[in-house]
Amino acid sequence: MIGKDILGLRDLDAADIHRILDTATRFRAVSERAIKKVPTLRGRTVVTAFFENSTRTRLSFDLAAKRLSADVLGFSASTSSTRKGETLMDTARNLDALKPDAVIIRHGAAGAPHMLARAFPWSVINAGDGINEHPTQGLLDLLTMRDHLGDLRGRRVAIVGDVFHSRVARSDIFGLTKLGARVLVAGPGTMCPPELAELGVELRHTIDEVIEDVDVVMMLRIQRERLGRAMMASSREYARFYGLDLDRLRRARPDVLVMHPGPINRGVELAPEVADGERSVILEQVTNGLAVRMALLYLLLGRGAGEGGDA
Amino acid sequence: MIGKDILGLRDLDAADIHRILDTATRFRAVSERAIKKVPTLRGRTVVTAFFENSTRTRLSFDLAAKRLSADVLGFSASTSSTRKGETLMDTARNLDALKPDAVIIRHGAAGAPHMLARAFPWSVINAGDGINEHPTQGLLDLLTMRDHLGDLRGRRVAIVGDVFHSRVARSDIFGLTKLGARVLVAGPGTMCPPELAELGVELRHTIDEVIEDVDVVMMLRIQRERLGRAMMASSREYARFYGLDLDRLRRARPDVLVMHPGPINRGVELAPEVADGERSVILEQVTNGLAVRMALLYLLLGRGAGEGGDA
Amino acid sequence: MIGKDILGLRDLDAADIHRILDTATRFRAVSERAIKKVPTLRGRTVVTAFFENSTRTRLSFDLAAKRLSADVLGFSASTSSTRKGETLMDTARNLDALKPDAVIIRHGAAGAPHMLARAFPWSVINAGDGINEHPTQGLLDLLTMRDHLGDLRGRRVAIVGDVFHSRVARSDIFGLTKLGARVLVAGPGTMCPPELAELGVELRHTIDEVIEDVDVVMMLRIQRERLGRAMMASSREYARFYGLDLDRLRRARPDVLVMHPGPINRGVELAPEVADGERSVILEQVTNGLAVRMALLYLLLGRGAGEGGDA
Repeated sequence: MIGKDILGLRDLDAADIHRILDTATRFRAVSERAIKKVPTLRGRTVVTAFFENSTRTRLSFDLAAKRLSADVLGFSASTSSTRKGETLMDTARNLDALKPDAVIIRHGAAGAPHMLARAFPWSVINAGDGINEHPTQGLLDLLTMRDHLGDLRGRRVAIVGDVFHSRVARSDIFGLTKLGARVLVAGPGTMCPPELAELGVELRHTIDEVIEDVDVVMMLRIQRERLGRAMMASSREYARFYGLDLDRLRRARPDVLVMHPGPINRGVELAPEVADGERSVILEQVTNGLAVRMALLYLLLGRGAGEGGDA
Repeated sequence: MIGKDILGLRDLDAADIHRILDTATRFRAVSERAIKKVPTLRGRTVVTAFFENSTRTRLSFDLAAKRLSADVLGFSASTSSTRKGETLMDTARNLDALKPDAVIIRHGAAGAPHMLARAFPWSVINAGDGINEHPTQGLLDLLTMRDHLGDLRGRRVAIVGDVFHSRVARSDIFGLTKLGARVLVAGPGTMCPPELAELGVELRHTIDEVIEDVDVVMMLRIQRERLGRAMMASSREYARFYGLDLDRLRRARPDVLVMHPGPINRGVELAPEVADGERSVILEQVTNGLAVRMALLYLLLGRGAGEGGDA
Repeated sequence: MIGKDILGLRDLDAADIHRILDTATRFRAVSERAIKKVPTLRGRTVVTAFFENSTRTRLSFDLAAKRLSADVLGFSASTSSTRKGETLMDTARNLDALKPDAVIIRHGAAGAPHMLARAFPWSVINAGDGINEHPTQGLLDLLTMRDHLGDLRGRRVAIVGDVFHSRVARSDIFGLTKLGARVLVAGPGTMCPPELAELGVELRHTIDEVIEDVDVVMMLRIQRERLGRAMMASSREYARFYGLDLDRLRRARPDVLVMHPGPINRGVELAPEVADGERSVILEQVTNGLAVRMALLYLLLGRGAGEGGDA
């Protein structure tokens, strides 16, 4: 049973996940119509509270809420009272006084969404908390894989890059293991430390050790500022050991799916010919992100409205 | 009779104020519903023109307009042509050419909203002008007090802090005296100079001289940059003479109301246990702010629409 | 026939232009009503993607889309993934995955809108690309002139200022010559180089050589940072040779129209008495801008909706 909030894939079971993905599939159709809007959440208030910069995730949620006819209030750290020293809880208490229905939060501190979810009656959707989780990204990744592969049980998925510091990777790992897939991770030592094995994944050292063997290769965005810490000379060096180019892709299964959460560093973790190639499903991920976010808003807020049949 | 604009509480009489508060009380119910929206201002254009940064006031007006189904255009100084040296009047003439119905303005210059109100046919709502007035804050404060105390005639209200530089305090003083309350102010000398007596308030020197004696204590936000000017050693020093903590609160009437316009400096003007304590009505103030802003937009714009019955 | 996009006036013929202006005239009436909204584009998604700062053009498009009931997604360079090094094409592919109906783009690179228009199925409206074109400004200028002068064939229009670096001037020149008007340009040498003659305009050297002779004088905004390059001592010097003041205006035809794309540098290219005088139609330009943008969105997106009769 999906509860009041979506905080992480760690909290969902396989049935919950499939139910969300099924709902997302139905909402994907709304965005294919000429009139891309349903009245489901008319009169509901959705707040996007982004304490870290974001464009694509914020726009995706914003559009999801608008296509469901909700009112959207945007709130970002750069213009907020948090700059006047207000605590997150005080900011949230103030939002609460405006009677929102859902707050979508991105915050640099892991656990921030959970704190709000416990304290307030409205639904909280985690749009990324520290290096903990980014569950809507995980769900859109799962939907994209399920579309192409069907049942994910026994499927093999490689995640390549800075897995340790990636909330996307963590949500993917939780989701994939719950749906029965096997996850292999590859990245430089500090990015894929042995502790990761506790999450139920297999550790490899380079992309070459995973590429031949998997149904999906998920390339993570490399944070250039992390390369230094990882003791790698340059992004060119990174590309040599961990980047996915055409040569490596030729050694993969012919039907491998290439995924990336975006934005892409072309020529670093992903060669342009691969990003734009026929095995890439990166833009399907974006489309699915919108559908997943519409589905979650509907599942969390829309059921009482008695208008769900519109979708 | 409420006119075209809301520029300050100085311009309203007691009957106007009670009428606004009565309307706000009805609109407060809209935000308690599942469908938090009425069609009253459909097709009306409300512009929020904030030449000073704000989050909470801007969000409150934005949501008020959306819950009345108006279209909202956001305009902030940081992205505006004013950075290209355009005068306020030229900016306003350009807005006028877009045929707005109301412009909500916050500006660093006292009198800026009045200038626009005289020059243009649309309604102007003052969201804070210099150190002059912040009438919607004043109205929400009055509504909060009236909810708890009923008739304010003869009630005693203390305003503590930098009263001289506070547009919130000035609007509160105008409103409270019109409704028959007595206002006591307390703050360091430069923050509560003798001239304030001209506004019809009694001056005291410390919070201890007012705390035992009042129905409401309104704590102002201290601007840290003002502390220097006020010749006080630090915010700790300020808290000692002017902050409200549990010890002081125990000396107040047991039914005293603690108010604050937010955002709070916890541990400076207000101890956390007091801000979050049972005498605090700070979050009711925020809820009432939304209701007051809906009421004003309705009273200024909505009467011609013939849909007022919806609220 | 107007196609999928509006990239520049260079691409339109006189019949297209008149059809857009006729449609704009009808939409202008919508903004004069109490209920300033038609349902024409309900459920359509319009993205404003401004990679250069803008207030007035962005607000005008935003309001145009809202008055047509479209959903508007705002996207600006300062908050975008482009700061993470994403290419324009990757940003656009991501927008594409959200299934927008129209993208309104302002970009520092000439040709950026054309690139997107070729690559994607949605409508692109150029809101200014480098020093190439700003077609909606050109159309609003033409509408303003047509309102006052009727048929523009044989009419004489002076454009004064930095014509070479002005995308507004280029769109005006393309539009005016297509409608049969004669265009005279005047400005310092580097701002009006001989190459401009290739666009079909006559070059003059000072405002005094054109002012007596024209039906319209279009004053361009001077970019203060360009004055240095143009070897002029100061903005005062500029005003002396190229500014329009009352003395010069007295030498013009009594029914001359004074135009300016805004924001005005008062006292530089335009004296305040002229900007606010009875020959100025500057604010009509702003009103017409909104109407032109509504017309374009309707013509590009609305025809399939079968609701065009609403306007």
